[in-house]
Amino acid sequence: MTLTSAIKASRRSNNKRATRGRGAAAASAASAMWGGRFSGGPSAVMERINPSIGFDRKMYRQDISGSIAHAEMLAAKRIIPPADAKAIVAGLKRIEAEIDRGAFAFKVALEDIHLNIESRLIELVGPAGGRVHTARSRNDQVATDLRLWVRDAIDEIDAALERLQAVLIRRAEEHADTILPGFTHLQPAQPVTFGHHLLAYVEMFGRDRGRFADARRRMNESPLGSAALAGTSFPIDRHMTAKALGFDRPCANSLDGVSDRDFAVEYLAAAAMCAVHLSRLAEEIVLWCSDQFRFIRLSDAFTTGSSIMPQKRNADAAELTRGKTGRIIGALNALLVVLKGLPLTFNKDMQEDKEPVFDATDTLVVCLAAAAGMVADMAVDAGAMRRATAGGFMTATDLADWLVRAGGMPFRQAHHAAGRIVKLAESREIGLDDLTLADMRAVEPRVTADVFKVLKVESAVKTRTSYGGTAPANVRRACKAARRRFLKGRAAKGT
Amino acid sequence: MTLTSAIKASRRSNNKRATRGRGAAAASAASAMWGGRFSGGPSAVMERINPSIGFDRKMYRQDISGSIAHAEMLAAKRIIPPADAKAIVAGLKRIEAEIDRGAFAFKVALEDIHLNIESRLIELVGPAGGRVHTARSRNDQVATDLRLWVRDAIDEIDAALERLQAVLIRRAEEHADTILPGFTHLQPAQPVTFGHHLLAYVEMFGRDRGRFADARRRMNESPLGSAALAGTSFPIDRHMTAKALGFDRPCANSLDGVSDRDFAVEYLAAAAMCAVHLSRLAEEIVLWCSDQFRFIRLSDAFTTGSSIMPQKRNADAAELTRGKTGRIIGALNALLVVLKGLPLTFNKDMQEDKEPVFDATDTLVVCLAAAAGMVADMAVDAGAMRRATAGGFMTATDLADWLVRAGGMPFRQAHHAAGRIVKLAESREIGLDDLTLADMRAVEPRVTADVFKVLKVESAVKTRTSYGGTAPANVRRACKAARRRFLKGRAAKGT
Amino acid sequence: MTLTSAIKASRRSNNKRATRGRGAAAASAASAMWGGRFSGGPSAVMERINPSIGFDRKMYRQDISGSIAHAEMLAAKRIIPPADAKAIVAGLKRIEAEIDRGAFAFKVALEDIHLNIESRLIELVGPAGGRVHTARSRNDQVATDLRLWVRDAIDEIDAALERLQAVLIRRAEEHADTILPGFTHLQPAQPVTFGHHLLAYVEMFGRDRGRFADARRRMNESPLGSAALAGTSFPIDRHMTAKALGFDRPCANSLDGVSDRDFAVEYLAAAAMCAVHLSRLAEEIVLWCSDQFRFIRLSDAFTTGSSIMPQKRNADAAELTRGKTGRIIGALNALLVVLKGLPLTFNKDMQEDKEPVFDATDTLVVCLAAAAGMVADMAVDAGAMRRATAGGFMTATDLADWLVRAGGMPFRQAHHAAGRIVKLAESREIGLDDLTLADMRAVEPRVTADVFKVLKVESAVKTRTSYGGTAPANVRRACKAARRRFLKGRAAKGT
Amino acid sequence: MTLTSAIKASRRSNNKRATRGRGAAAASAASAMWGGRFSGGPSAVMERINPSIGFDRKMYRQDISGSIAHAEMLAAKRIIPPADAKAIVAGLKRIEAEIDRGAFAFKVALEDIHLNIESRLIELVGPAGGRVHTARSRNDQVATDLRLWVRDAIDEIDAALERLQAVLIRRAEEHADTILPGFTHLQPAQPVTFGHHLLAYVEMFGRDRGRFADARRRMNESPLGSAALAGTSFPIDRHMTAKALGFDRPCANSLDGVSDRDFAVEYLAAAAMCAVHLSRLAEEIVLWCSDQFRFIRLSDAFTTGSSIMPQKRNADAAELTRGKTGRIIGALNALLVVLKGLPLTFNKDMQEDKEPVFDATDTLVVCLAAAAGMVADMAVDAGAMRRATAGGFMTATDLADWLVRAGGMPFRQAHHAAGRIVKLAESREIGLDDLTLADMRAVEPRVTADVFKVLKVESAVKTRTSYGGTAPANVRRACKAARRRFLKGRAAKGT
Repeated sequence: MTLTSAIKASRRSNNKRATRGRGAAAASAASAMWGGRFSGGPSAVMERINPSIGFDRKMYRQDISGSIAHAEMLAAKRIIPPADAKAIVAGLKRIEAEIDRGAFAFKVALEDIHLNIESRLIELVGPAGGRVHTARSRNDQVATDLRLWVRDAIDEIDAALERLQAVLIRRAEEHADTILPGFTHLQPAQPVTFGHHLLAYVEMFGRDRGRFADARRRMNESPLGSAALAGTSFPIDRHMTAKALGFDRPCANSLDGVSDRDFAVEYLAAAAMCAVHLSRLAEEIVLWCSDQFRFIRLSDAFTTGSSIMPQKRNADAAELTRGKTGRIIGALNALLVVLKGLPLTFNKDMQEDKEPVFDATDTLVVCLAAAAGMVADMAVDAGAMRRATAGGFMTATDLADWLVRAGGMPFRQAHHAAGRIVKLAESREIGLDDLTLADMRAVEPRVTADVFKVLKVESAVKTRTSYGGTAPANVRRACKAARRRFLKGRAAKGT
Repeated sequence: MTLTSAIKASRRSNNKRATRGRGAAAASAASAMWGGRFSGGPSAVMERINPSIGFDRKMYRQDISGSIAHAEMLAAKRIIPPADAKAIVAGLKRIEAEIDRGAFAFKVALEDIHLNIESRLIELVGPAGGRVHTARSRNDQVATDLRLWVRDAIDEIDAALERLQAVLIRRAEEHADTILPGFTHLQPAQPVTFGHHLLAYVEMFGRDRGRFADARRRMNESPLGSAALAGTSFPIDRHMTAKALGFDRPCANSLDGVSDRDFAVEYLAAAAMCAVHLSRLAEEIVLWCSDQFRFIRLSDAFTTGSSIMPQKRNADAAELTRGKTGRIIGALNALLVVLKGLPLTFNKDMQEDKEPVFDATDTLVVCLAAAAGMVADMAVDAGAMRRATAGGFMTATDLADWLVRAGGMPFRQAHHAAGRIVKLAESREIGLDDLTLADMRAVEPRVTADVFKVLKVESAVKTRTSYGGTAPANVRRACKAARRRFLKGRAAKGT
Repeated sequence: MTLTSAIKASRRSNNKRATRGRGAAAASAASAMWGGRFSGGPSAVMERINPSIGFDRKMYRQDISGSIAHAEMLAAKRIIPPADAKAIVAGLKRIEAEIDRGAFAFKVALEDIHLNIESRLIELVGPAGGRVHTARSRNDQVATDLRLWVRDAIDEIDAALERLQAVLIRRAEEHADTILPGFTHLQPAQPVTFGHHLLAYVEMFGRDRGRFADARRRMNESPLGSAALAGTSFPIDRHMTAKALGFDRPCANSLDGVSDRDFAVEYLAAAAMCAVHLSRLAEEIVLWCSDQFRFIRLSDAFTTGSSIMPQKRNADAAELTRGKTGRIIGALNALLVVLKGLPLTFNKDMQEDKEPVFDATDTLVVCLAAAAGMVADMAVDAGAMRRATAGGFMTATDLADWLVRAGGMPFRQAHHAAGRIVKLAESREIGLDDLTLADMRAVEPRVTADVFKVLKVESAVKTRTSYGGTAPANVRRACKAARRRFLKGRAAKGT
Repeated sequence: MTLTSAIKASRRSNNKRATRGRGAAAASAASAMWGGRFSGGPSAVMERINPSIGFDRKMYRQDISGSIAHAEMLAAKRIIPPADAKAIVAGLKRIEAEIDRGAFAFKVALEDIHLNIESRLIELVGPAGGRVHTARSRNDQVATDLRLWVRDAIDEIDAALERLQAVLIRRAEEHADTILPGFTHLQPAQPVTFGHHLLAYVEMFGRDRGRFADARRRMNESPLGSAALAGTSFPIDRHMTAKALGFDRPCANSLDGVSDRDFAVEYLAAAAMCAVHLSRLAEEIVLWCSDQFRFIRLSDAFTTGSSIMPQKRNADAAELTRGKTGRIIGALNALLVVLKGLPLTFNKDMQEDKEPVFDATDTLVVCLAAAAGMVADMAVDAGAMRRATAGGFMTATDLADWLVRAGGMPFRQAHHAAGRIVKLAESREIGLDDLTLADMRAVEPRVTADVFKVLKVESAVKTRTSYGGTAPANVRRACKAARRRFLKGRAAKGT
């Protein structure tokens, strides 16, 4: 019997005895019942449904960090001999190196990353390796590992969000003066600047970062030392392991420590919100790239073409980003369903917590990179944007506001007058700024030449200087503020 | 034409002209096509699908507060005459009183709460009422209203969560020494105290409060003054209205201000997580009330019975609480789907933001109250709980740990020895603490009489003194800490 | 004690005795714990969370039909006296008339529609009314009612879907020759006919009808007679009640009869799929109405405008239809979550089955009517559609296919040649059909004058005669086939 | 240039020209913006987000079948030379064999399974291989492949469901007389037989099979020949390819053919419903295995134990099955979100259709096998089940019904009398059947000795002979009927 199987055996052996006697004949009869894909009988099914090593190996670094912190604490508290702790730590580091370079043989029979590593540890350092599991259980171990993993994922996503914001701010600065129609209901409403439009996304992704940061802070409590569920009688120091692993403090309740998966749900909820933001940006990129809009053009790097239709530049990266929103919302939904109605404390259902988290992370990271890539890559056709503001009497609101402001008219009356002037322009099939002063005065005598200041979209845009408004000067200020608010790290690094 | 219809007319009149000529005959032909339930032609359908007054009237207080803040700012900035502002404010207060006492006639033809109130305002104060809409739009108005509403809802929920925590802590204090089996996989694992178990929920609901508080803080920026989408050329002071409405600052980007619904999603995500916690508690209550567990008993106040089966006490309130989790998860899911893939800025789809928020709020509030009620109400059968710890050799872990600690044995060897001793007891069909010292020494000579200290569940529970562990002394300390951490307001009020 | 309270009392009385003694003082102390919104103590919470009469009254017709069928069967089987059955049936019909005309006083204290009606029945016909509940339970009663309700809803939705298909087919016939770009990735790909495009939706809605029909057929089994859960010892005839209520047969298993809610889930899944189809159509309508596309125009009946921007025609009905998809997907999700992990048989959680079903039904019915209305209403701008096919060398595929077919070239080589010819046109900034024969022969000598047959989008479209292809002749045939396949009832009625 | 790269090149080359000039310096500057994980610039991101070969290789058999059918049709219709078709078919079969034995080198650069196979085909058979893509497109190709894959998956799932039903029926036959409490609200309500309980699941899984069969029938239309979206001008025979691939007919509309993913959604909806049924069974298994119920015992094959707590038999397989419900509901949700709001026809978002389908299939197949395994494996403790019926006066309903039937009493009065008799038994702390005739007659004189026939749970169960009721004789009949209805294939095969 190898050491690796010994662990499994010792963890399982005693209940062998409890097995219902069931001869080979009975077993084969039973297996005939559900056979097919699972030809080897019930245990074959169990071998497929039960092990998590296929996915939880992703947490090997976190598992090893946790074990090192635990072993060093056990030694410091004299629960295990210091020499054993040293051997354990050295063994674990060697295992980490083995996994890093792909030299570790994962075994499905050892179910999960915890037993795979512990088994190898005993191989490497002998029985001392078995001491690492003193005063802990897989229940608190896996809870610790996954928290550490999600914490790392948040740091990676925060960096990706910051990069995306950096690209958006840079393009916003470039296009502080570029005018395009602002849409409501996908109908041109009022002219805005493209820089202003891009900054709206900087706000969204800024809130996403805030949500991830809050989730990180809230999850940053150590379950380690909760043991199976009740705590332990060993004189462990949970504050010490918490500190060693970068946690702010230990969890206050051991039952909660092993059964809490809030942090994974909160993380997925933040990811889903972020994905929805990306889907909105992606939708706009798809629209802007269309033959009907032509506001931007993406290079080959983010599009695919057709072998015989040269005009075709499918914005694949944007469409995939939009589509992958479903996947992340699905992951959030899945985990909420898993947890619904589970009694305390640990239930095996909770093994289903990892794959949604892993998949959503990979998906979000690649989508954030794709979004940053597309925003950096896109060639803006300012002419097309400007032309799209021509048709819609987009300064009608400005005319009305001018009448209120300059003409001293009551609001509602001003709006009626503006409406009549717009109709006049429409009936002549010309723009508002193509009307003469006389034309307008015929409708509303209080109009003066001053009105022309607001009828051109360029002028209109410039007047929107209220805080948060679209005026180019505002946009420039907002870009500076955004750098200050969101790119602190980058400013320091000069990027 | 009444004033109320005049507003609608003025908002719509100009595009009448744009209508495709369509005679009565054509209209009736067309309507024949989709007729049935909507006999009156297309406009009948539109009248059913479009208005929001059926549900957004819930926000009347928020709408009025927003309008008052806006009017006072307009006057302060000399955009409208102070006298008009005064009239507007007085009119709005009168309208609020009318709605409060059910004397306001809501009109579906006026679509939403904003137009219903503005129309009535003009009725009450004349044309000056029309000035309230200067430098704003329904787009920023509705965004402001909903934020204020959600903020109020969070405050209500936070109070309900605090009440629930207060009940849980009080019952935890009562049951710091009450022992029941701690379950993993719904199998008895180790004995724990009921107080410790209840405190696990105090942690969960504490995190829920944290999430709601974070959501509140993040959403607490004023969209008012974003106007239709681009800001305005009126010299408004958005900081002033923000402050008047209790916001921390204005939103930094007007496009984002009118199209952001993150706050509603984040709120629903926090509600869904909280509902999942409630579903876990509810599941436990259902189990505990069952004939098989009999750990607790609920009074008639939270159960229903059967006319001829006196033993039947269905824990309806718990089952409903568990079931309503689906509703809240569904609401979160619905809003994420609504927002997915929407281009900027406002799209009418976003009218679908309110009902999930309103329904999830009502649901969560009633479930929180039901949970607090059940926890306060439940009669704990400590004897049944204690008896349930008898069967399962629940101190086997303690025996193994004792061997590590007192016997100096390596962990893995100790566990094997403990296993053999458990088998001995099992073969004799007695408990671990019914074995004699000689029995145990026959298996493992290093056992001494000291071992009996850990074999009784009461003793085992007492030894779990690691931070966050289940020992009664820990539980008492944890209750005090929980009062300090979570019941600040109550402590002050002496509740 | 009134009769109405007597029912409640008799159903509950025996367990009164089981109530924990709790004086008024205690009650008020307890209520102080969760007070606030629920000032009246625990029972106040229960009164809010427990009753379903607020929504299940929608099923009054179904409840009455079920009771009539049950009473008549009881009489036929001599389980109750025929005279009592007659009185019961008369009483129930009178109650139905009362509810129809709004004269029925629903009582929250009687919890649900079943007790409200039974109580009124006893008021009307005396103790004989109590016999209606012989050999049944609220468990099989509510399961029967909801099935009947959903069955009716399916019939209503099927009719609405047929109406929508009728409108689509009619507009497809009108536009069998109208050419617009067929899009992939929202990029123009190949020219298609608008009729063909509309018929794609006829297929989708046809599948939706198939799904609803299958759900209807599968659910059409009667749970009535399952009683509380185990069946009954009364010699009832479940086939008789099943037949009377239009069911195909009784459910085969009484436990399943009272705990099955598959039919509601399957119904919601069909509704969600249908809503997704509507969302795709709605998205296209929004795009087509945009200033950038201008393919269609909706009248005032389905749009809202702006008081001063005459060009603005927000396609509100389409946006709302698209948005409401979230609501229906949310309802499906909610019910799946409710049912997940519930042990057999009836659990109170299942009371949460009705509201998602009711809300999704109302939503889908109005969205289907809105879609039919918009399709009937839209003014198609065939010129704009045709112009949109001009830019993109949309017949490049046709050129390549022509080279394969007429020139006998291998496919891949033909595509390369076509690519070179397209480049030539592009470099001259002209369309493919503006090139001369000489131009093309210079690139590929095998080109003959015959090629011009396929270079015009009109010609290209005409050649797509493969089964299911876009050629106008195909579209006309497909319209006829669609009438035959989907509008059977209408054909008969001459609509 | 290899042949494999040539395909990619020819599909992409023409739009190279359209690339924005961007020097190496610019590219590296841009890549610095989103760098990090994707160090190689935009194309590195695209290489991660775009290819589907990582998962769509699962469809290689389906892709090859589709191509063979297409090539043979092209030859039959004289669109390609018969000799080329022969070479193509031979090449495709060789490729299938290569993939079968793991000898095929999948290339990410070739994006998907279609290009990987076509590229290898050209390597193997030369330019003739290029002819296979005549008159089709990847759009109809992938739609065909996925339908074929889902169809195969349905067949696999149907077989697994039938196996599960077979096990349930067999155990139901064994336990036609085994009595346990029937629960409502997890409270004992009336005694039922365990066979009857298991048959409730046979009904559920029977409906699941019906749903899958309906989905299979509805999806069984061939999109092949829809080409890119518009059909083709080649004289293809879509009925021929449809027949060759086992489809009932070609899809009627080419636009719908390439953009429809209903079949995947409907499949996932059926899977989600089935998963919910499995979660209910799993929940019951977890409960029944608990120390509190002890109704059944699972062998080691489906449980995991603890190294030192021999009594611990965690029902892991049941918990995992319950938990995986979340995953399948999440998959359904994800795909609905992906499709929501997509305009016609193909959009790259739709590449997200496969992974939810693949993952849900693997999950459902393993859960069905686990469920069948557990049901076959479970050792039923009939004594524990019977004892659990002792406490609750579970025949009180029978007493009341007897009074109605035998005593001729009105229903409501009978129930009151029964209630009083139950109280008498309760006050003496004995069972109903422990009362003497005199005891009962003291309460209600119409009671006769005949009543004892219904007071024993065994007797009570036997009287529930109404159709679908729990009487053992019914259960035996129902088992036979279930074999007839559901196990046709097996009966034939003698299994």
